[in-house]
Amino acid sequence: MESRSGIITLLTDFGLADNFVGVMKGVIASLAPQARVVDVTHGIGPQQVKQGRWVLGQSWRWFPKGTVHVAVVDPGVGSERRAIAVQAQGHFFVGPDNGLLSDAVGSSGAKVREITNRTWMLKEISATFHGRDVFAPAAARLASGARFALAGKLVNNAAWLGAGGPTRTGKRFWVGEVVHIDRFGNLITNLTSGAIPDLESRPAIFRAGFGDVAGLSPHYGAGRPGEVIALIGSHGGVELAVNGGSAARVLGLAMGAPVEVEIL
Amino acid sequence: MESRSGIITLLTDFGLADNFVGVMKGVIASLAPQARVVDVTHGIGPQQVKQGRWVLGQSWRWFPKGTVHVAVVDPGVGSERRAIAVQAQGHFFVGPDNGLLSDAVGSSGAKVREITNRTWMLKEISATFHGRDVFAPAAARLASGARFALAGKLVNNAAWLGAGGPTRTGKRFWVGEVVHIDRFGNLITNLTSGAIPDLESRPAIFRAGFGDVAGLSPHYGAGRPGEVIALIGSHGGVELAVNGGSAARVLGLAMGAPVEVEIL
Amino acid sequence: MESRSGIITLLTDFGLADNFVGVMKGVIASLAPQARVVDVTHGIGPQQVKQGRWVLGQSWRWFPKGTVHVAVVDPGVGSERRAIAVQAQGHFFVGPDNGLLSDAVGSSGAKVREITNRTWMLKEISATFHGRDVFAPAAARLASGARFALAGKLVNNAAWLGAGGPTRTGKRFWVGEVVHIDRFGNLITNLTSGAIPDLESRPAIFRAGFGDVAGLSPHYGAGRPGEVIALIGSHGGVELAVNGGSAARVLGLAMGAPVEVEIL
Repeated sequence: MESRSGIITLLTDFGLADNFVGVMKGVIASLAPQARVVDVTHGIGPQQVKQGRWVLGQSWRWFPKGTVHVAVVDPGVGSERRAIAVQAQGHFFVGPDNGLLSDAVGSSGAKVREITNRTWMLKEISATFHGRDVFAPAAARLASGARFALAGKLVNNAAWLGAGGPTRTGKRFWVGEVVHIDRFGNLITNLTSGAIPDLESRPAIFRAGFGDVAGLSPHYGAGRPGEVIALIGSHGGVELAVNGGSAARVLGLAMGAPVEVEIL
Repeated sequence: MESRSGIITLLTDFGLADNFVGVMKGVIASLAPQARVVDVTHGIGPQQVKQGRWVLGQSWRWFPKGTVHVAVVDPGVGSERRAIAVQAQGHFFVGPDNGLLSDAVGSSGAKVREITNRTWMLKEISATFHGRDVFAPAAARLASGARFALAGKLVNNAAWLGAGGPTRTGKRFWVGEVVHIDRFGNLITNLTSGAIPDLESRPAIFRAGFGDVAGLSPHYGAGRPGEVIALIGSHGGVELAVNGGSAARVLGLAMGAPVEVEIL
Repeated sequence: MESRSGIITLLTDFGLADNFVGVMKGVIASLAPQARVVDVTHGIGPQQVKQGRWVLGQSWRWFPKGTVHVAVVDPGVGSERRAIAVQAQGHFFVGPDNGLLSDAVGSSGAKVREITNRTWMLKEISATFHGRDVFAPAAARLASGARFALAGKLVNNAAWLGAGGPTRTGKRFWVGEVVHIDRFGNLITNLTSGAIPDLESRPAIFRAGFGDVAGLSPHYGAGRPGEVIALIGSHGGVELAVNGGSAARVLGLAMGAPVEVEIL
């Protein structure tokens, strides 16, 4: 039922220049010495809840069932926003109730609990660092096998940012957006085959910024150097890329920029 | 007496773009296969011993007793500066004798030894990378249970940079400094309740750069957007912050900048 | 014969701001729960195969025998370039066949196999992320004790970028190059004692950019502040450095810049 992999993943906007992440690992090592901690990333843009939600949604399924995923992008730390734990798809999620855990919260059969059990937190709770004082200890409890039901009461109104998919704007038109820009300047969109029938089976035109891209390329090297291409990226959706360059720079696009697809 | 947690933490100014940290982990894996290595941070400013000392001081206590903390910010590597190991507060510390380990060295009951035992080092010792050749192997020995006394002789003149607290400049006045600036631009000071009676119980004014801040706010979101607020941060001292922005940028302050507090 | 340390190292150009590395670790945790993953670095310049090759060559030997080293700097992902596994010097290497694994491939007694065994890969293979779909699972198999021979057929024409050493240009002259620039701005060259007899035993002049440096210094602090010095770095070769500064900035040199040595 409630199996545990013994793994705790961390996804935050803390960066690695401070000791935030190290201290969370110290707390986990103190409370759950057997747990193994794996960093998903700490490079979410500061307070970029929506970006954090997307990256988490692309990451958790690659870990074994029974993993506890801690996510902290938390502009409201210390305010009235709740701390929640979610059980969904055989995984556990811990974080602030601000939409960061939307994919888990919106998952079929998900159970969401407010974390109110004081024995799941550190004795003293600061106003600025619940990653250390609330989320890390709660994850340590869960990873050690504590029953999910002990976290606190079930809630049915956890923050949910929507499904995150593209919008249909015409019979053959969809508008999505840039949901992530990776290190290589590739523009990752929420235009996926799941959301758009025929995306991969029929010719299409992608429009973003000043660029029009016709059709899907098989891999990054398929374009001429400097040319913008579209391809199905490793997340299963459309990605705009430039062979040997940065699509973000070439197209001048940032997070949230609209990308249109027309199925021909 | 000398219990071990099996954990080795690393704090350096090596960054993560080079292989310095990875190679230290390779040496540890070779000498102490059972030890678990946890990164505190590798983002200390290059050769910023004072900053490294402060971050280490804010980090080690979150780990279980018996942990070995390796710190390497070492402008004097290869020169006559000594390598030391410290036993303090149930933890162990390994690093250069340049003040980086001041909090441990100055701790009550601390024992400091020069690391001279050749079997605690690699066979060949470079002039530029004692993290690999001296500190990692010494930590591996300690984490594996080697007696602390085997490190080398006790020394009583290890470098110590002072207690690091604020200075009282009047009956109701204290001057501290910015000891750390985190990823979010929050200015962390050494103005703590431990050093300043009544800091949290009476009204106060904080002066830094061009800013005057009256009173302590309960959390980051308590200020108007763009407004500088003061609050007690997760380190237990005064932190200057801007809701949704960077206090460092708004106030134009850098590491070491003075921050005055007047208790009203 | 084929002992395993249970350790998998990762070296990539993925950076840490995305979830690429985290997802690879998720795949490894799913397939080889007992394996321990150690990051060598993810800071190789995007698509800089030559730099990645050099850093890998400086890193793998510090790990225990039986370690599986995964390296991914892979501009040709999704194209016809092969995936290979190498057994050399008691270690294993996994990565693209583009020269990144040159040091292993060129090592005496090395065995190179193309990875074609479908049970060593994920079921679905994307066109853009073989780190997740091919290299991580293959490494998980190897680290779990699967026989190297199961990877696929032996190949004898794997990409090899040459020995990577300096060129002799006269009786007493050698020209090498800057193969790495570390966080501190130190210029690391391929001028090693192994390649240049008398490098450490006789007087020498090093010429790079606008600078002439006479002789080797014992350590970083040996130069006057701002002065360029040469010393034998931790990789066993000549490194140009500036006491308290950046040799890369002072000399205006970048990766690949020539460095000449004259043995007097």
